[in-house]
Amino acid sequence: MSTTTPPLPDVLDAGLLSPVRAGTPAEAATSDGAWLQALLDAEAALVRAQASLGNVPVEAAEAITALARADALDLREIAVLGRGAANPVVALVQAFTALVAAKAPDAADYVHRGSTSQDIFDTALMLVAGRTLDLLVADLEGIAECLGSLAGEHARTLMAGRTLALHAVPTTFGLKAAGWLAAVCEAAGRLRRVRAEGLVVQLGGAAGTLAGYVEYEKLHRGAREETVAEGYAARLTDRFAAETGLSAPVLPWHSHRAPIAALAAELALTTGVLGKIAVDVQSLARTETAEVAEPAAAGRGVSSAMPQKRNPALATLIRSAALQVPAYASVLTHTMLSEDERSAGAWHAEWQPLRECLRLAGGAAHTARELVAGLEVSPARMRANLDLTGGLIVSERLAAVLAPVLGKAAAKEVMSRASREATASGLSLAEVLSKEDAIAGRFDARELRRLLDPAGYTGAAEELTERALRRYEDRPRGAGA
Amino acid sequence: MSTTTPPLPDVLDAGLLSPVRAGTPAEAATSDGAWLQALLDAEAALVRAQASLGNVPVEAAEAITALARADALDLREIAVLGRGAANPVVALVQAFTALVAAKAPDAADYVHRGSTSQDIFDTALMLVAGRTLDLLVADLEGIAECLGSLAGEHARTLMAGRTLALHAVPTTFGLKAAGWLAAVCEAAGRLRRVRAEGLVVQLGGAAGTLAGYVEYEKLHRGAREETVAEGYAARLTDRFAAETGLSAPVLPWHSHRAPIAALAAELALTTGVLGKIAVDVQSLARTETAEVAEPAAAGRGVSSAMPQKRNPALATLIRSAALQVPAYASVLTHTMLSEDERSAGAWHAEWQPLRECLRLAGGAAHTARELVAGLEVSPARMRANLDLTGGLIVSERLAAVLAPVLGKAAAKEVMSRASREATASGLSLAEVLSKEDAIAGRFDARELRRLLDPAGYTGAAEELTERALRRYEDRPRGAGA
Amino acid sequence: MSTTTPPLPDVLDAGLLSPVRAGTPAEAATSDGAWLQALLDAEAALVRAQASLGNVPVEAAEAITALARADALDLREIAVLGRGAANPVVALVQAFTALVAAKAPDAADYVHRGSTSQDIFDTALMLVAGRTLDLLVADLEGIAECLGSLAGEHARTLMAGRTLALHAVPTTFGLKAAGWLAAVCEAAGRLRRVRAEGLVVQLGGAAGTLAGYVEYEKLHRGAREETVAEGYAARLTDRFAAETGLSAPVLPWHSHRAPIAALAAELALTTGVLGKIAVDVQSLARTETAEVAEPAAAGRGVSSAMPQKRNPALATLIRSAALQVPAYASVLTHTMLSEDERSAGAWHAEWQPLRECLRLAGGAAHTARELVAGLEVSPARMRANLDLTGGLIVSERLAAVLAPVLGKAAAKEVMSRASREATASGLSLAEVLSKEDAIAGRFDARELRRLLDPAGYTGAAEELTERALRRYEDRPRGAGA
Amino acid sequence: MSTTTPPLPDVLDAGLLSPVRAGTPAEAATSDGAWLQALLDAEAALVRAQASLGNVPVEAAEAITALARADALDLREIAVLGRGAANPVVALVQAFTALVAAKAPDAADYVHRGSTSQDIFDTALMLVAGRTLDLLVADLEGIAECLGSLAGEHARTLMAGRTLALHAVPTTFGLKAAGWLAAVCEAAGRLRRVRAEGLVVQLGGAAGTLAGYVEYEKLHRGAREETVAEGYAARLTDRFAAETGLSAPVLPWHSHRAPIAALAAELALTTGVLGKIAVDVQSLARTETAEVAEPAAAGRGVSSAMPQKRNPALATLIRSAALQVPAYASVLTHTMLSEDERSAGAWHAEWQPLRECLRLAGGAAHTARELVAGLEVSPARMRANLDLTGGLIVSERLAAVLAPVLGKAAAKEVMSRASREATASGLSLAEVLSKEDAIAGRFDARELRRLLDPAGYTGAAEELTERALRRYEDRPRGAGA
Repeated sequence: MSTTTPPLPDVLDAGLLSPVRAGTPAEAATSDGAWLQALLDAEAALVRAQASLGNVPVEAAEAITALARADALDLREIAVLGRGAANPVVALVQAFTALVAAKAPDAADYVHRGSTSQDIFDTALMLVAGRTLDLLVADLEGIAECLGSLAGEHARTLMAGRTLALHAVPTTFGLKAAGWLAAVCEAAGRLRRVRAEGLVVQLGGAAGTLAGYVEYEKLHRGAREETVAEGYAARLTDRFAAETGLSAPVLPWHSHRAPIAALAAELALTTGVLGKIAVDVQSLARTETAEVAEPAAAGRGVSSAMPQKRNPALATLIRSAALQVPAYASVLTHTMLSEDERSAGAWHAEWQPLRECLRLAGGAAHTARELVAGLEVSPARMRANLDLTGGLIVSERLAAVLAPVLGKAAAKEVMSRASREATASGLSLAEVLSKEDAIAGRFDARELRRLLDPAGYTGAAEELTERALRRYEDRPRGAGA
Repeated sequence: MSTTTPPLPDVLDAGLLSPVRAGTPAEAATSDGAWLQALLDAEAALVRAQASLGNVPVEAAEAITALARADALDLREIAVLGRGAANPVVALVQAFTALVAAKAPDAADYVHRGSTSQDIFDTALMLVAGRTLDLLVADLEGIAECLGSLAGEHARTLMAGRTLALHAVPTTFGLKAAGWLAAVCEAAGRLRRVRAEGLVVQLGGAAGTLAGYVEYEKLHRGAREETVAEGYAARLTDRFAAETGLSAPVLPWHSHRAPIAALAAELALTTGVLGKIAVDVQSLARTETAEVAEPAAAGRGVSSAMPQKRNPALATLIRSAALQVPAYASVLTHTMLSEDERSAGAWHAEWQPLRECLRLAGGAAHTARELVAGLEVSPARMRANLDLTGGLIVSERLAAVLAPVLGKAAAKEVMSRASREATASGLSLAEVLSKEDAIAGRFDARELRRLLDPAGYTGAAEELTERALRRYEDRPRGAGA
Repeated sequence: MSTTTPPLPDVLDAGLLSPVRAGTPAEAATSDGAWLQALLDAEAALVRAQASLGNVPVEAAEAITALARADALDLREIAVLGRGAANPVVALVQAFTALVAAKAPDAADYVHRGSTSQDIFDTALMLVAGRTLDLLVADLEGIAECLGSLAGEHARTLMAGRTLALHAVPTTFGLKAAGWLAAVCEAAGRLRRVRAEGLVVQLGGAAGTLAGYVEYEKLHRGAREETVAEGYAARLTDRFAAETGLSAPVLPWHSHRAPIAALAAELALTTGVLGKIAVDVQSLARTETAEVAEPAAAGRGVSSAMPQKRNPALATLIRSAALQVPAYASVLTHTMLSEDERSAGAWHAEWQPLRECLRLAGGAAHTARELVAGLEVSPARMRANLDLTGGLIVSERLAAVLAPVLGKAAAKEVMSRASREATASGLSLAEVLSKEDAIAGRFDARELRRLLDPAGYTGAAEELTERALRRYEDRPRGAGA
Repeated sequence: MSTTTPPLPDVLDAGLLSPVRAGTPAEAATSDGAWLQALLDAEAALVRAQASLGNVPVEAAEAITALARADALDLREIAVLGRGAANPVVALVQAFTALVAAKAPDAADYVHRGSTSQDIFDTALMLVAGRTLDLLVADLEGIAECLGSLAGEHARTLMAGRTLALHAVPTTFGLKAAGWLAAVCEAAGRLRRVRAEGLVVQLGGAAGTLAGYVEYEKLHRGAREETVAEGYAARLTDRFAAETGLSAPVLPWHSHRAPIAALAAELALTTGVLGKIAVDVQSLARTETAEVAEPAAAGRGVSSAMPQKRNPALATLIRSAALQVPAYASVLTHTMLSEDERSAGAWHAEWQPLRECLRLAGGAAHTARELVAGLEVSPARMRANLDLTGGLIVSERLAAVLAPVLGKAAAKEVMSRASREATASGLSLAEVLSKEDAIAGRFDARELRRLLDPAGYTGAAEELTERALRRYEDRPRGAGA
């Protein structure tokens, strides 16, 4: 590893263009440095797996494991040399073998023995994914906890439900938070399942037959008969999985990329769930609406021009992630078209977009946790906005109440006419309706007031909020739950 | 429904631009005609659900159900009027209500009562999805059966394993088929899970509180107290689910679109799995390789110019689908950014791309079934191609065998040099090696021949093939398995 | 053409899932019916081009042209048979040749002579594109005219400029309209350029050498010498271009797909420009803001549930298109990876997404024209909203004015503090500032009032609006301008 | 700038996951370090522009310009602080202002005066784009030169034309190279146009009215009248453009993002053009085909497992880029949906995908130049492969020759039958045909041999090759050509 500061143009990425993940744990967990370590972890685990089956000396495995430290290698050199083989593993193996040869000569021949670049790279990728998913799930759990509190606290906080940009019917902020909560819980559950079952080691050797590994086992046994190595492939795969903490696949998946595509799809789902929260927050934070505000913090939401602003910066960051991840994830389904036993390009196109999915989802979750932990909610503004339309927001209810009397179509027509008149005249809906014969004859002023009270027309909002909270409290927990 | 043939420019889609699904069952299952029927099915199920809870007369529900026939409505008119509300349900409700009013006047007021466009549309979409998934899963099962046969039959059929476009090490066609099989089984299993758990009714009313439904229940009970309707939202949702055969969600999901995005993601995965088979077939069918050919059939693979061609048309169709679906599915994660209680545009952007995902996946599966059912395999060409490189394809093995003797690095270097010399000179690897001192002294001609025999270097190919077959035979079956 | 109404499941597309284009001219121009006609137009133009060069009898060309009517063929049959060859042209050629053989036997041998499916299909696609672009450009010109009026009329209509969801500094609605106008003009200009230069015929024969065409010319000349046909490829291409009204390419482009990808990219840009207008309209139409409203019309913006609503349905439709087209267009750059002289799948994946790009862009433009033609603007609400923050919207100005006095950083700090205080206390900024020593000593109440007047801080808004209008009025016009 | 080596997990990107651009000039040109410099370049240019119009002291502008060195700032700190404002400019301005205040106190107040984050960021992005486009265009020119040589050298090198994976009709390698050449020239021309006209400065101030800039000018002039600053916005924009070497836009484009989307679209087109070359090379390099090979170099194409391999690593890298860029570019059309005067998230989603487009396109071009410069072509293998089908590759010609005799349909039928028979029997087409009465009677053996010679059926291949070469030689050159 170079010991001097690299010249600035060589600092390829410091997070400058991606503040949603700059400085977050997910960024570190998916860095090239972390990836290099994961590659070495995979190499070491592979040797240990072979040693545990007897065809590699345990001392060699121990020496290799001890030396498998990313900071002993020149990351940049390996990256640039990676152009030669179109992947970095060949250069890594050369550098690491040289290191082992220098420090533990007897072990050097066991580095990457019987292996192929993709076995190491794919396994490392899964290690990186697992480490990032752990961070991500923890943040989702933190988010859920905050949302649970918000939903409970605001179970009866009235606000306008909005559809197609306009006030629709009343709802509660509790139900809105419960909707976010249910979506986050669902996403967390899905990610836990991927973490527990979907992260698989890769072990196939040069073309998916494990021939190299099997050959070394045969050489070790000194035998020519096929039967000697029977079941060895499965045993080695299982040991490799155990050493890495990943799962064992049915078959090598060098050119069957569903595990990668499925992982990316889950990350896109998660980011979408968080992005939904972000656009809701932005909608409610608009100057005219002002029903929520982001948590205040030094330097947060600052504008370079306007002293008065407290921008919804966290929601902005989350949304920026959610606008990117779907496209990145789509690369990973495109690249499922992997010809032959290893694609000449489709495999190689996976790495950077998958990293982006991981770190953007991780960054978005980290950011969202901060957002919901400090979200400022203004029930007063919610109530004030609810009254903006002078009762129009409950016209659906009036139409329902009139339906048995006038017929459903006529009732809706009456209410449409009354709504238009209220809008045009500036009168409240109550005033307009009190002049309608069809209504005035049937409902006195008090009854009309009751019917027009938004608090009386929240349907099952409270019940639904409770259901979501109950689900959350009863959720399965723990690893893989 | 108009009774005359529409003028040709009005035939918007006859499958002309999408032969992969033209005339397939999935195309019919996702047609606008089928969608209209599903919308009516949702309306009818909703009334029946209300009737079963007592606030709608059973006779009305029966009358509405009987009249809910798509061919009684003018599909095109509804579609064009759909521009007014930005969705077709408003126009559908008007047309259907008029129809019911004419045929069963007492029932008309119960059409769409308490409901909102999105409840009907989303539920209909899920009905369409379920019907298409059934077709899709059946085709995947058919594909798996064929692949199981191919894998079993060719468990020992030698062929070249290819990576980055070049011969790598030997493998078997059985293992290739087993790889396809495992991926198809996995995809089918995932789709079965989505079918069983992931297809949920939508029921939220105007803004997700079910206020309209609840109001009618209260009016029916004649009560003003909240408690009267307690639990009604959950009961109605459960009944609606039961009437449609779909699942009940935790909460209304008007603007929480994970169910849609997850469905699309699964369809993209499936199409990717099929696309992988297609690109493999194309790779093997190339004139120079000619190891497989598509099933012959009248009109199949015909060129408009070249009499001699029998194009891999089925694989071409499948690949054309797999190149599209990832992008369409990405729309469905983008549209998760659905602001408020109903997005003004994100919801509306889902429909066409989701339909494409469904019918392209369905068409691809239907096509792939035909492909694998009749795939012509040429073990002779596989063997001939395997010998093309004069033994180079097993140079990895030689390097392994020499490693204990020369050291791993030196062994690889010897083999690299020998490989280059063989390529340059046109000599076989055996000839070149027999002149290398390091080799000639250790291995006699017979031993060298044995080591260079591709049949001796297939690693765990047979074992892996058997494992995949066993998995397939032991697979869980039946609905939702 | 079948003369009976197809059963409903066979009505694949009536526009039900895509109201943004249902019933619009672009939908008809891109229908399968229109596409079939374009295929026949391409076949006829090709024969005429050959006839004009002497190797086809003029009478045959005339007969074929006269018979090239889509309504004489069975569109659905051709579409379904298209599965055999993976494209519909082979089946079309058979059906059309049979028709010609029946009606004008001497001409039948000249149908599709020397040609290949892709020559016909690609040329037809370009014909469809050209016809749709004409509609699209006309709608963009209509939009620009409306926007020009809006920009002129509202050049001094004050409103809040909004960034990151919050009030930033004042601007004018004129400048907002001018921004839309400039973007629409730019998009129209780009599309005109594509229309004039980017739509090219395809003419390459079986594999891009025009060998079939050349062979027939040689046979016609009765000669074996190469020289006889010298320049024939270029002449035939030019004549074909002339007959179709398209441009002639440098080379056949069977597997060089930049023309398709570039066309799709332009359509995505255009839809993005229109989508920007849509999201702005939605932002301003929100209930709390209410600065604009969509044009009222019978059935427009109707909700199936809520009588009072007048949804921004047109903006919703436009946005729904803009959320889809980027993904569809991305398929068309993916498919540039077209191996060999014709790809086995990449070509076939282009058709449906390109059609979607065309008809969604066309539908969005048609819809946007309606939107801007009738947009209702409320200067009073704009002014009222501008005053919502009690002067905070001009705090940037105050900071600037104070900068020379206090230093820039100190000035911004003073204003940040004052802004926070105003927000917290509910006092106007003027009140807060009048208590600040640094300010009160320097500016009297009248001066402060002047500085805090939003009308005095619109910068170059008017000048910029005029510049955009001048550009628009001086724009190049006419075909290809 | 920190002077110690960062811990490895902080090395976010060393190119490890993206070998196609690791170590290429485009990677350095788009690094965070380069971006930081571009941000400072934009700040400095803005002050100089103001100074040139008189309202900033020239000495301040000079001092700021001299201090605007990225290596004087802490890149990582700025990146991480960027989370606060959701963009890095606020933190940059604070850090840079402090630096200027320390070194040139009188100049500090002029840093970022009147400006807004987006003015600086967008302008910097355009600077980075311009610098990268220069590299990219130079590489495309180098590629074109190599392809011109290949096309000229191989104008008569016969090879099989291939469609849908199978031999179609003969062509020449010259024409294939000419096709690549024409596409590369077209792409280079488009990029040159973007470079010359499409890269525009951003200058709008807080919300697109330039109010801050105008206010400072007014304060400088000491005037209250509007007229004082008339035309100032245009003058300042022009000067800013001149100082940066970019173009001046019609209006500020804070939320009109066509310039970004158009740039990304061009980069996707370019990468697609290069990717087409890559998939062709891979197709021809396959072991069975072996018509081309990548240039040999130390470490190039090396496998970690197989000593004999010389993988098409360069083509693999290029294809890996071409599989990613379409998706990244699609983000940039999605983000055109930028609400208000500045989007809360759409803008922020642009940066990373645009950087990827730039560096992947640049890396792909750099790699492609290496590929075509050393491409090894084997005319002998091309000829041998051409003969593989025993004449079937010219069956289209025979059908044409027989058409005037037998009728076109009958001729094609004869040839289809003969082709099937030849394939089934293993006989050459000549042998089969010589037994057909319809043929044997009309063509003697010599004539048949002539007709079946692939060299005689290359159509206009040579003419087309020459046309492309002539176009290339006559191309417009120089900046913006």
